[in-house]
Amino acid sequence: MAVQKPTQPAPGKPAPDSTRRSEKSRRAIYDAALALVVEVGYPKTTIEGIAARAGVGKQTIYRWWSSKADVLMEAFLDLALREAGPAPYTFPDTGDLAADVKGVLRATVDQMNDPRFDVPSRALAAEGVVNEQLGRELVAKLMQPSLDLYIDRLRAAQDAGQVRPEIDPRIALELFISPLAQRWLQHTGPISHEYTDALVDYALHGLAPR
Amino acid sequence: MAVQKPTQPAPGKPAPDSTRRSEKSRRAIYDAALALVVEVGYPKTTIEGIAARAGVGKQTIYRWWSSKADVLMEAFLDLALREAGPAPYTFPDTGDLAADVKGVLRATVDQMNDPRFDVPSRALAAEGVVNEQLGRELVAKLMQPSLDLYIDRLRAAQDAGQVRPEIDPRIALELFISPLAQRWLQHTGPISHEYTDALVDYALHGLAPR
Repeated sequence: MAVQKPTQPAPGKPAPDSTRRSEKSRRAIYDAALALVVEVGYPKTTIEGIAARAGVGKQTIYRWWSSKADVLMEAFLDLALREAGPAPYTFPDTGDLAADVKGVLRATVDQMNDPRFDVPSRALAAEGVVNEQLGRELVAKLMQPSLDLYIDRLRAAQDAGQVRPEIDPRIALELFISPLAQRWLQHTGPISHEYTDALVDYALHGLAPR
Repeated sequence: MAVQKPTQPAPGKPAPDSTRRSEKSRRAIYDAALALVVEVGYPKTTIEGIAARAGVGKQTIYRWWSSKADVLMEAFLDLALREAGPAPYTFPDTGDLAADVKGVLRATVDQMNDPRFDVPSRALAAEGVVNEQLGRELVAKLMQPSLDLYIDRLRAAQDAGQVRPEIDPRIALELFISPLAQRWLQHTGPISHEYTDALVDYALHGLAPR
């Protein structure tokens, strides 16, 4: 799974010490960016504010990232990778599509219920609603890697005869993930493992009688 | 369909002239509220700003509404009712569930592609993402009436044997509307009649082979 990796500092001749310093600055910048977006929201988060809180110069941030949106998206991606490990970026294939999708969605529910993920990702998503360019970057950088995994898993299910061949996997995956995303983002209903299990059953077997 | 009606001014003894004046003020307030939320966003829209732009006193607004959220939600609901007529608040029942849901979703796509609806509802939705109380009010006042119509239509389909009896209509409706809502709100993909037609077919007949 090609997950976007944080930009590395320009190589130069990094002695071990300067590498450690760089890594420490990067961590401080990520932490500052996530804390600020939670506290003051996306519009009031600035590169200057992130630099001041991280204890680094503004130029350090501009050397590695081109905008506050870039810093925030990479900080959030780094958080997701550190806290959840590689799990969200692999998709199980036990041969049982329903069980595999239910497992991934249950993990997503647990993540949505964790304030460390909920608060910054909600702040970014809210800005993405009204700021189309940022919204499209969020999709491309944060969501697409996960969507690709669903597509791959659904294609494997098609090859195994468990999903109809004429189904478009890019649309089909939305039957699983969009209802959960809408309940979470728009507060339209409670989210739980029982709920996502029902979504998977409804989507795979359809609402109409067989 | 019990659509929330705008609060009426306290009765008193309204002569025709004062009724006309009240109606004119109400319209000016709605227009000002929608224009402001589009121009400056929800957080910077204030009762003072709405009053100034509408050419009315702040007290006129406070006499009819308790908060800017109330004004905005009623202004948006009024816009939806005026522009779209009663259509979005009835749900066809021709006996053909797929055709009926496709027709409603196509009309929703057309509305989402209309800037008069898109811009203010997007501004309100973005605020609802990070402001849980407002988000829940938006669901209760703006979305629930439509959701109830889907529930009624799905129950009628269950009675007619076209939807499995064990399906929960409140969850089932999300297979139709949440993918569309997420594409629209989060810019995750293009929206079109062909897309919503596919959603209806996938949801009714399931992804798995029959």
